[in-house]
Amino acid sequence: MKLAIYGYGNIGRGVEAAVRQNPDMTLTGVFTRRDPAAVKTKTGVPVYAAADILQHKADIDVLVICGGSATDLPVLTPMLAKDFNVVDSFDTHARIPEHFAAVDATARAGGHTALISGGWDPGMFSLNRLYANAILPQGSDYTFWGRGVSQGHSDAVRRIPGVADARQYTVPVPEALEAVRAGKCPELTTRQKHTRECYVVAEEGADKAAIEQAIKTMPNYFDEYDTTVTFITAEEMARDHSELPHGGFVIRTGVSGLHNEHTHTIEYRLNLDSNPEFTALVLVALARAVGKHASRGDYGCKTVFDLAPADLSPLTAEELRAHML
Amino acid sequence: MKLAIYGYGNIGRGVEAAVRQNPDMTLTGVFTRRDPAAVKTKTGVPVYAAADILQHKADIDVLVICGGSATDLPVLTPMLAKDFNVVDSFDTHARIPEHFAAVDATARAGGHTALISGGWDPGMFSLNRLYANAILPQGSDYTFWGRGVSQGHSDAVRRIPGVADARQYTVPVPEALEAVRAGKCPELTTRQKHTRECYVVAEEGADKAAIEQAIKTMPNYFDEYDTTVTFITAEEMARDHSELPHGGFVIRTGVSGLHNEHTHTIEYRLNLDSNPEFTALVLVALARAVGKHASRGDYGCKTVFDLAPADLSPLTAEELRAHML
Repeated sequence: MKLAIYGYGNIGRGVEAAVRQNPDMTLTGVFTRRDPAAVKTKTGVPVYAAADILQHKADIDVLVICGGSATDLPVLTPMLAKDFNVVDSFDTHARIPEHFAAVDATARAGGHTALISGGWDPGMFSLNRLYANAILPQGSDYTFWGRGVSQGHSDAVRRIPGVADARQYTVPVPEALEAVRAGKCPELTTRQKHTRECYVVAEEGADKAAIEQAIKTMPNYFDEYDTTVTFITAEEMARDHSELPHGGFVIRTGVSGLHNEHTHTIEYRLNLDSNPEFTALVLVALARAVGKHASRGDYGCKTVFDLAPADLSPLTAEELRAHML
Repeated sequence: MKLAIYGYGNIGRGVEAAVRQNPDMTLTGVFTRRDPAAVKTKTGVPVYAAADILQHKADIDVLVICGGSATDLPVLTPMLAKDFNVVDSFDTHARIPEHFAAVDATARAGGHTALISGGWDPGMFSLNRLYANAILPQGSDYTFWGRGVSQGHSDAVRRIPGVADARQYTVPVPEALEAVRAGKCPELTTRQKHTRECYVVAEEGADKAAIEQAIKTMPNYFDEYDTTVTFITAEEMARDHSELPHGGFVIRTGVSGLHNEHTHTIEYRLNLDSNPEFTALVLVALARAVGKHASRGDYGCKTVFDLAPADLSPLTAEELRAHML
């Protein structure tokens, strides 16, 4: 299977590394909207101008589109699904139905298969919500994120005057997690579920008290949370906060028996050293399934809910039944 | 969707309760090889003789076959798949390929859809092994069972002379679990992964030391484990050990990055008050998917690997995308 990458940021580089773990795949190119001469891939894969991508159709079975959900993917995925089988990681939950409709229309018109909203949330977390809800119809869902870096919250802190750099970690509250696991079905406020930890490099002479106050009272981002702010040096930031770890928990508790007398807990947990590299590994497995659907003539837009698990694996159905069931 | 149950033991009763949590389903009958007059269902569902099942074809969209894997299911599922869409919980891992082939042949010949090896292991644990392996090609798999009652091990203890009753719990070793979760990829012996706890009611005047010795040295069942034996009264057995809890952990740790510099852990955990009732809830969700495949004319034998997650849910594709992705 010949894969190509459209957009060479953190996730694009993750896909480049992920393909090397999948011997049934080859990476044939990276497409960029920047000057291709200015982009150097980590493994020597050729870089082409995004504008020239139609010339490379024969070398691309599935195109992994690595762009932002705010402005890139709503335009790119419908556009590219007309000519390519594609995978994206569109993660604006509220706009998924509209994105799905746009991609489905162009993919069907072009006779291609598309998978939107791949990754871990949406993605693996969604799958686990679905399975757990199907198994335990009478129950409660809980999702906890972290401990991990939220890029959106880090960016929000960086925009505060006097902030040179910032990193924000989302942290699940251990007591809340334990109450959920114990099947107590707690009603949890935003504040009771997660805390937020900010590490901030202040500019020379900046008013640190004012920065801390600005963070803690920032509407939507921080005001509903217990937030801690720690000022550190640029050296400490580079040394201790250069990675992008993340993860979280999807938990559903439910009951069974004629009198709901038994309680069950289903928990799915991710602990990730690198959010973009793990997302890329998921996208590559999904690309395999997209390629299989396309080769069967099953076109249009899909989500993780529509893919049989076997299609994500390089193993045959016989191998899976013999060794993994 | 009209469901029926074939075999009214622990899992059959679990299916009876599970159907009540799924408003899109109706339970139309229980089929038994015993005298139907001697079987009384918990919810008043009619009981019929297994031999008469063909007379009820019009009332059965999917038949959930609840029998033992050793001798019942290898005969029943191929036989019934000729005339019905069926679901079973065949759990003899080594014989799955052979069972699949037998069921596939009769299901195709009869124009029906069958799902074998549903439940949680095989079943949900298998699914999680597959997804985690597809996402993290370079990694290690670990499965821990428990804390839970192993019926096979309990039966083995009951066969020892002088034992009136027994219950065996399989317990994961916490240190092993922590080492795996920490991404240390330990090589674990059988003894290092699980301990076994036996609660035994001895017959009047029985030699308890001899019983304990017989348990701890029993080949295959106990000799490779650290086993504790606790003698209790029949009253304590009834009071403290009448339930069938179980569960466990499927964990895969793997690496990413060009130099394998990042580690990721995927963990799926079940904590179940009632093993048979949870198994039944899974079987019912799978029966929904089987019904959908059959109505599309997609016949033959399937496993959990072949079913798109959306087919397990009563929600529409639009609802799933809007609310669960």
